[in-house]
Amino acid sequence: MHIAIKSLVAGITLSAMAGVTFAQTVGKLEDQIRWRQSAYHTMAWSMARIKANIDGTYNKEQVAEAANVIQAIANSKMGALYQPGSDKGKGWKETRLKPEFFTDKETLGKVGPAFGAAANEMAKVAAGGDAAAVKAQFGKLGEACKGCHDKFRKEE
Amino acid sequence: MHIAIKSLVAGITLSAMAGVTFAQTVGKLEDQIRWRQSAYHTMAWSMARIKANIDGTYNKEQVAEAANVIQAIANSKMGALYQPGSDKGKGWKETRLKPEFFTDKETLGKVGPAFGAAANEMAKVAAGGDAAAVKAQFGKLGEACKGCHDKFRKEE
Repeated sequence: MHIAIKSLVAGITLSAMAGVTFAQTVGKLEDQIRWRQSAYHTMAWSMARIKANIDGTYNKEQVAEAANVIQAIANSKMGALYQPGSDKGKGWKETRLKPEFFTDKETLGKVGPAFGAAANEMAKVAAGGDAAAVKAQFGKLGEACKGCHDKFRKEE
Repeated sequence: MHIAIKSLVAGITLSAMAGVTFAQTVGKLEDQIRWRQSAYHTMAWSMARIKANIDGTYNKEQVAEAANVIQAIANSKMGALYQPGSDKGKGWKETRLKPEFFTDKETLGKVGPAFGAAANEMAKVAAGGDAAAVKAQFGKLGEACKGCHDKFRKEE
């Protein structure tokens, strides 16, 4: 926490020097990448939780908790963590962001909102507790994740 | 995502072999640690976002988004990611979990729920949009984070 705050302050200073203006919390490039990787990994954990419930014993509460995490992160305007140049650099590990993220605005304008909509619907369906509906929406949400990965994430 | 799912399956297999039974998604120890570190780091990012709004120009929507992330993660029963032995090992980096986490149940039983309550209140206050109330609750939430760190997290 202390480190994050310190980096944040450094990031704001850096941005001010670079003449960048934004109200968002963006931090330094390495912070942006680490925050992105953490948020995606937290969503991956939540996806794994939902999948375990679909494949095994279904627990409505667990699925709702996991879907709420994905929804909250999906609605966090993570775009602020994609400042120019952040397709290079290391957070927890080297970023896999492709430079196309900064040029193919048309695709980004489709896959970003599609993911947000799928995440909101997932949370709604999860709250309902119908396992079959959750399974169907989980598939759609996975496709929405993939829509962005296919275009903007390098293969490992 | 694919890797997380693969690890999850491996984790379940491992747990089954070890005779451990749980409905939760726990994965292998290294997955647990990486998921924990990711979730805490995502909360740290959200705390930094709230702090930037308190210290700078206040944006109600941003603060609510960040508080919702913290609340959703705080309500995700992360306890499942603290299987025995997970005070040693590496996720993104070496875990800082102290072994006391597994022995001092009395403290854990206080600081865990206190954090959850503070996170829920933070989301409620953030939705209200009163900057002074948000600042006050942000302080309380920080203390709740610290309550656990002081006891169960090694210094860096």
